[in-house]
Formats: sequence, C-alpha cells, structure tokens
Amino acid sequence: MKPKLPLILITNDDGVSAPGIRALIAVMAEIGTVVVVAPDKPQSAMGHAITINSTLYLNKISKENDAISEYSCSGTPVDCVKLAVNEILKQKPDLCVSGVNHGSNSSINVIYSGTMSAAVEAGIEGIPAIGFSLLDYDWNADFEQIKSHIRKITLEVLENGLPEGVVLNVNFPKLKKDEIKGIKICRQAKAIWMEKFDKRQTPFGKDYFWLTGEFVNQDQGEDTDEWALANGYVSVVPVQFDLTAHHTIQQLNTWNWNE
Amino acid sequence: MKPKLPLILITNDDGVSAPGIRALIAVMAEIGTVVVVAPDKPQSAMGHAITINSTLYLNKISKENDAISEYSCSGTPVDCVKLAVNEILKQKPDLCVSGVNHGSNSSINVIYSGTMSAAVEAGIEGIPAIGFSLLDYDWNADFEQIKSHIRKITLEVLENGLPEGVVLNVNFPKLKKDEIKGIKICRQAKAIWMEKFDKRQTPFGKDYFWLTGEFVNQDQGEDTDEWALANGYVSVVPVQFDLTAHHTIQQLNTWNWNE
Repeated sequence: MKPKLPLILITNDDGVSAPGIRALIAVMAEIGTVVVVAPDKPQSAMGHAITINSTLYLNKISKENDAISEYSCSGTPVDCVKLAVNEILKQKPDLCVSGVNHGSNSSINVIYSGTMSAAVEAGIEGIPAIGFSLLDYDWNADFEQIKSHIRKITLEVLENGLPEGVVLNVNFPKLKKDEIKGIKICRQAKAIWMEKFDKRQTPFGKDYFWLTGEFVNQDQGEDTDEWALANGYVSVVPVQFDLTAHHTIQQLNTWNWNE
Repeated sequence: MKPKLPLILITNDDGVSAPGIRALIAVMAEIGTVVVVAPDKPQSAMGHAITINSTLYLNKISKENDAISEYSCSGTPVDCVKLAVNEILKQKPDLCVSGVNHGSNSSINVIYSGTMSAAVEAGIEGIPAIGFSLLDYDWNADFEQIKSHIRKITLEVLENGLPEGVVLNVNFPKLKKDEIKGIKICRQAKAIWMEKFDKRQTPFGKDYFWLTGEFVNQDQGEDTDEWALANGYVSVVPVQFDLTAHHTIQQLNTWNWNE
C-alpha cells in the first residue's frame, strides 16, 4: 500500500505569480499533495490584516486536469489561509508553507510580514506552519540555491511536528548553495527600522509621503537570526502567537492598580 | 515653576472621528499635551500592516488656535505612528495611547488588531504605549463609564514606565463604572475564531465571500484576560514584540538540522 502523502497548503504575500512561490510549489510537489491559495496581487507588509469591511473573491486558476490545484484570492495572506481551510480544503492540511518571500523577514520584520502572518494564522488554526524568506528582493532572485534546504526543513517538521503554539520563521542568506554553512535555531534579533519619509508633491501641489527607512540591528548576540544570516547560516526562529510578556506579570502586579 | 506636561500621541484604528478616540482625547487632555494622528477612515483588523506600495497623505484637521493638534492620515494605524514620530512631533512622545477601540482586542484578537499594532509600533520605537478597547462594538458605546479607569492606568504607566519591550493591551467589560470590580494583570487567553464564510453572488453571477466567525475561548484559566472580562474586571495584558518562543529552542536544537 502506498503511504498517504501529506496535504500541503501553500500561500505567500508576493502574489500567486511570484517566482518565490513557484519555487516553493516545485519543492512541495515532490513531498506531498499540494493546494495553492495565494493573493491575486502583491500583499507585502500587510501584517496580520484581514478583510472584514469588504468582499473576498476566490478564483480557481488551475485547470481541471492539472496536478496541482491553484486558487487566487483578492484578500490578504491571512484571508487566503482562512478561505483555504474553510472553503477549499476538505480536510485540515498537514502543513502550511508560506513564501518564498522576496526579501528578509528576519528580526522585527516578522511583525510586518504578510508571509509570516499567513504562517501564524495557520498555526493559530492548529496547522504546523513554516514561513520561508530569501534575503534578495529581486523578482529574479535565484531560488534554486535554497531548494534543498527548504526540502530538509520541511521534512524535519513533517517528521517531528512542531511544539504547540509555534510556527517557524526561516530566512535564507543570499548565497550559493555550497556557500550556505548550515541551519541554525535562533532568537529574533532586537532591531528596528529607522524611518525616513520621502516627502513629495502631487502635480496639483499637495504633499504626500513614501515610507522608506534603514534597518538597524541593535543586537550583537550570536544566537540571533541576524547573526546567523550575516555569517552564512539559514536562520530558523520559533515564533509564538501568545504575545504575553509572562516575565513581566509579577513586576506589574506590584503597581497600585486598584487604589 | 510649572512641571512640564507629558507629550501624548493618540491614535486608533476606527478613524479620527470615532467616538472612542474622542473619549480618549478628552481623558488625555487633562493629563498632558496631546497630538492626535489617526486614520482618515476605519482601519479595523489591519494588524501590523504598513503602506509601502502606495502614497501616504497627512491632513492637519485642527485649526491654528485649537488647544489640540489633530491630523488625519490616509494610511494604517502603524503608518500613523510612524508619520507622527518622524514628520509631526519635534520630540519623542512620553506616551502613545491607541483607541478606545469599539470592540474587544482581548486574547487572540491582539494579533488582528490595528489598535494594538499602533501601540506595538510605538513600543518598537521605544515609546511607552497602551491600547484601550471596550467590549462594545456599538458606535454609540458609553465611553463615560471607563474614563476614570483609563486615567488611572495612564497615570500608573507615566509614573512607573513600562518594562522594556512591552506595551499594554487594556480591555474593558461593557459595564457601568460602579459595576467594574477592578483592574487585573492577565495573560492572553488561548482562543480562536471559528470562521464561517458567508458565500453570496454578485448581481452578475460571480461568487464572493464575507468573512464572519464565532469567537471560541479554549482556555479556562482564571489568570486570562477572557476570565477577567467575563467576571467584571478590566484586563491588562503585557504584550511583547519579541515573538521568539524561547522555551522551544532547546527542543528544536535536538532535531537533525544539519545532517
């Protein structure tokens, strides 16, 4: 008897036609049964946004005889996961993978990332989930170099499962396959974006802004994702969605809240 | 000599004209110097979305002689904080408050909330921050009942500061002032939204969806925000933006990552 293949849901935030998700689909198609539900347009930096004040459209874009079912969705990456689980898939997927993102989602970027929010949403719904990102914003980035590592990480997660309440944030340095030194479990580096707004004027004389900025790593720890990536490693950060700062509760309880 | 008043930045996700932010402005105007920068339209459930693929507009809506400076912004709650800090305020604010949200941001709602993401963004930028939410979605909710508690919590934060890397998620039960039993420091309850998509057809025969759902609390702990709110208390959850699941790193390091 042939063993049952795992059902793998794939999404991203760069849109269903992005080379990054195409590379991810190619790897996953060798591991399991794949269903793709991804935004019909770029949805980068959407964070954990969901669509509640407008309508959502879902289009089947694969043909009847295609090996892989693909859908595009008018909503955010998180909407894609919700629609996939509730309206498309007949059973809960064994895994959800998101990406491969064109650009970094390391350190504080995890907060803004649509790629990672899709993975987190799957995690909330009890589905093991991984977000993959490559430190190369180029639309024509070379995803071939990281395919074997994506496969390795995916197989490890399928074999071991993930701790409860945790999804993985995986970032790849922009290196050739042979230059990548290995995989490191990391913590999220303390870093910020120093914003710089580019102020311009419309042809009609009204001011407007473009949000730009510079990424500043404030963390020299060698156990961080930033350190791993700068030193040629793939970074894997376990990400949780219980945001409680448990270690501060005792201290906060010493305040005079009820006087 | 008159002591210097704290500079307080106010934002929200329901839009600058919402009664919730009007109530918050009224309380803060008695505590410090207030600047309001809020979305020009509702931005609920935007999570930590930022605007990078389109332009941002900022409009000063207060008049020259008004006691309080107010701006509306075309972007998300997080955009509002970034624009306020970088383009409007001459100095870093002493506090950022977000809300009062029309509706709950307790437990897993914190992840989807624009109100809380604005507070988290301020926290990332090193500004003590609090998100306030009232468990009443009504546009005409009675914010008078919670003003004294908002004042109390704000003064405690200004006096004590907040632990590093932490902002507060404050939710109020829908009760009369005298019925509120007190303030409780809590952890985020484990809960999920069970989605239910309302599938309809356009007048032109195309399927579309509305995202709806039912909130399910899976956590019976008496130290949770859900318990506090159900039992008549104001819930205060310390929220962190280091998402690393530190407690799982040791376990993940036992996997065969590099074989």
